[in-house]
Amino acid sequence: MSNISLFQRKYQELKNCLIKIQALEAAASVLNWDQTTYMPTGGTYARGRQIATLKEFAHEELTDQSIGQLLEDLRPYEQSLPYGSTEASLIRVTRRDYERATRVPPKFMAKFCQHQAVSYEAWVKAKSLKDFSIVRPYLEKTLELSRELASFFPYKHIADPLIDLVDEGMTVSILRPLFSKLRQKLRPIVEAITSVPSIDDSCLHQYYPKEQQLQFGCNVIERIGFDFQRGRIDVTPHPFTSSFSIGDVRITTRVYEDNLTESLFSTIHEGGHALYEQGIGLELEGTLLAGGTSSGIHESQSRLWENIVGRSRGFWECFYPQLQGIFLKQLSSVPVSQFYQAINKVVKSPIRTDADEVTYNLHIMIRFDLELAMLEGKLAVKDLPEAWNERYKRDLGIVPANDSQGVMQDVHWYGEMIGGMFQGYTLGNLIAAQIYQGAVKHNPEITVAIEQGNFTLLHKWLKQNIHEHGRKYTANELINRVTGKPLSIDPFIDYIQDKYSNMYDLKGPIPA
Amino acid sequence: MSNISLFQRKYQELKNCLIKIQALEAAASVLNWDQTTYMPTGGTYARGRQIATLKEFAHEELTDQSIGQLLEDLRPYEQSLPYGSTEASLIRVTRRDYERATRVPPKFMAKFCQHQAVSYEAWVKAKSLKDFSIVRPYLEKTLELSRELASFFPYKHIADPLIDLVDEGMTVSILRPLFSKLRQKLRPIVEAITSVPSIDDSCLHQYYPKEQQLQFGCNVIERIGFDFQRGRIDVTPHPFTSSFSIGDVRITTRVYEDNLTESLFSTIHEGGHALYEQGIGLELEGTLLAGGTSSGIHESQSRLWENIVGRSRGFWECFYPQLQGIFLKQLSSVPVSQFYQAINKVVKSPIRTDADEVTYNLHIMIRFDLELAMLEGKLAVKDLPEAWNERYKRDLGIVPANDSQGVMQDVHWYGEMIGGMFQGYTLGNLIAAQIYQGAVKHNPEITVAIEQGNFTLLHKWLKQNIHEHGRKYTANELINRVTGKPLSIDPFIDYIQDKYSNMYDLKGPIPA
Repeated sequence: MSNISLFQRKYQELKNCLIKIQALEAAASVLNWDQTTYMPTGGTYARGRQIATLKEFAHEELTDQSIGQLLEDLRPYEQSLPYGSTEASLIRVTRRDYERATRVPPKFMAKFCQHQAVSYEAWVKAKSLKDFSIVRPYLEKTLELSRELASFFPYKHIADPLIDLVDEGMTVSILRPLFSKLRQKLRPIVEAITSVPSIDDSCLHQYYPKEQQLQFGCNVIERIGFDFQRGRIDVTPHPFTSSFSIGDVRITTRVYEDNLTESLFSTIHEGGHALYEQGIGLELEGTLLAGGTSSGIHESQSRLWENIVGRSRGFWECFYPQLQGIFLKQLSSVPVSQFYQAINKVVKSPIRTDADEVTYNLHIMIRFDLELAMLEGKLAVKDLPEAWNERYKRDLGIVPANDSQGVMQDVHWYGEMIGGMFQGYTLGNLIAAQIYQGAVKHNPEITVAIEQGNFTLLHKWLKQNIHEHGRKYTANELINRVTGKPLSIDPFIDYIQDKYSNMYDLKGPIPA
Repeated sequence: MSNISLFQRKYQELKNCLIKIQALEAAASVLNWDQTTYMPTGGTYARGRQIATLKEFAHEELTDQSIGQLLEDLRPYEQSLPYGSTEASLIRVTRRDYERATRVPPKFMAKFCQHQAVSYEAWVKAKSLKDFSIVRPYLEKTLELSRELASFFPYKHIADPLIDLVDEGMTVSILRPLFSKLRQKLRPIVEAITSVPSIDDSCLHQYYPKEQQLQFGCNVIERIGFDFQRGRIDVTPHPFTSSFSIGDVRITTRVYEDNLTESLFSTIHEGGHALYEQGIGLELEGTLLAGGTSSGIHESQSRLWENIVGRSRGFWECFYPQLQGIFLKQLSSVPVSQFYQAINKVVKSPIRTDADEVTYNLHIMIRFDLELAMLEGKLAVKDLPEAWNERYKRDLGIVPANDSQGVMQDVHWYGEMIGGMFQGYTLGNLIAAQIYQGAVKHNPEITVAIEQGNFTLLHKWLKQNIHEHGRKYTANELINRVTGKPLSIDPFIDYIQDKYSNMYDLKGPIPA
């Protein structure tokens, strides 16, 4: 057998292993989706065990020595191929996942998962009782386990390996100065906006029947490019996106009948995630390349559609007449300009998920800094609520009414870990602006097309430049390829300044 | 370590293995349920692969030598324990499944599964085109593979191993004389009934809106004992029951708006299957004992509730006022006696799934005999349609209009295999009558309780005597334990004679 055909045989062997792993992972996702959407409560206990078992099998398969051997054998083949070829990328990314997975002892992962489940339960209780002390011992254990997880990897900063798990290539030494600059730019903008009279958004808080809200949301994402032949939408308390294969990508949304924006922008947000997963190149199906490349890039796709497109004036020039037609009683006397202002109202609020796009990153950066301080041992869990409230006062000028609206508002630390949990959101916002700028630079007609309800131009560009590649390129590689520049805060700041100085009657230009 | 604690450790090890296998099997079932209920069409290809992979893993795990070793090591432990103890039963039944699974080469199973998928596709096409020749070559291959599957087991009759896969302990030498006697008894009864003027069941074929039909069906099965905290109902083209754990048992139904009985009795039928699965003892959860013990026993539970209870006069004394209340326009002038007759109309029809409980077994026994003839090599696939039509003429006095309403009406031979596919239905009818007779003998108040809408008495008795045991006992063992007698056709014949001689104005007693 020639070397090439030997390599091809081994490559096929590797692919066959990955297809099995993908089936296990996809099954775990389906079981999770089902648990959140349709499962009767009686199924809870067994379902947890079933998902854990599938994940264990997937982990065992991925860390099997035979994969390591195949990856070793395929090294010369990989090196003989172009970096961006499917084959080289598949070998490279699989090796990265393999090496990452083999560093962590399975027993440790099982222990951590078990702790996450009980910690989550404690958080649910603590949050409903507004009593941080209930969850505190669990969070202390989570911190200990998060540090232990990091310790299985080499690092410069202890948070680096945890960040790297979801945002590969990002480190504290990159993110800290980036975020610090972003905060410096954002705070005066927020001050300027919030010093002028507040926008009246009461038009959004009338009675909007559930079914019509859902129907409109579906229309919108279908127009944007969501393929209902290869996906569906359901209603859950917390919206999320899951992908079981490139042909089966599902989103969920939630609906409040006294709030028009919650369901609509959740749907567009998840729709953005889903376009990414539906757009992955079919040749990557069943391999580890068939997924989003990082938390930041994934979030960039959801935020791009939710905010840059979905909260733009042009978008509503297109969709507002339809929305008015559906909710005639509620909106017939509300002009599009007023609606546009209402959906873009900037306000300093205590809750991250309610935050507008201007203040949102301030919320994230507070969490990022506190994560680092805890991992560094500079902040004890017992002092976390106080540190949280202090930072909110300093950065946003408000103090949460209680710990449920403060330090316990997000599930991440309580259900997952401390470290790597939040930077992806702000990265997403930055990357979205940078990518959109790149898209418009290549296709200046994109903005006019959106006003005319034509989203194909933008969607196609994103598909070709981002979606299709799946995990072939890291976030940093993608950003460089697509925009010709490394990650920067400038496009985001430019976008915010443009949009909000046009919208608000600010005295003089917004400070840059 | 003492022998006992060594055994207990090994027993626990075995249980841990089984919990993993159950998780894989349950995941495959969830994926299958999802495919039938909610999956977008784009997911089809990947889903097939995912389910196949999970089943492969489950098979690999079950046939792992370590299981064989544990079973060997546990033999003395098993023998030291009572036959019906959970421990002894678990070891015994696991050994049976292990031995069965290890006999069949994994490669053969993969080949067979693949063939089943393409054969199913061919059947869908052939049926819609009413052209048997399209599916014939696939069915010939299925016959060959079915024979090969049987050949991995020792047997007296080549169909025995295939029957044993789903109805353990049943053989051709038991079933053939049993069925022959049944046919002899049934044919004159059918003749007697169909010689008197036919019942007018047009009241069932008015317009019945879907939502109200579904709601009524849910009410009925909830009253019977279906626990919606541990199950749910959805709508699919072909009704089925699936169990993912004892706390999560789901049924599906279908609704025709011009037919009141289709959805109702499908729902009760699947509800009966579900009561069985929901009633399994919790200590069996996650093991191979947590399931129905045979096709026949499972079918006995669905048919008992569907026919013996659900088509009884007493049942409708209780439910008919409610049904009339919902469908006032359609039923207010239809007295309960007329409704009762309509839902029990006996008619010689070409389609099994439309058949009443009197003619139903004649349909089944035709299929059973043809299966045996094909497996024995006495009937070639090419001659099957003719043989089918001849038997229908002989046994039911009718000839199907075409092969789609004849030999191609059921999916079983085309999507699964030839052999073991049909005896379970007739066994189910026989066992249902025998078990119900046993239940009433122990609790004579059961029939009155049903008239009063109290189903707890019967449900509780079935739970204690059948459901709770899961797979601890074989069908034959269960029937003997519960009724004190081996399987017999007498209770069924008695039931049919009683019910229908009361209902029809027959000249003289029905011949016995």
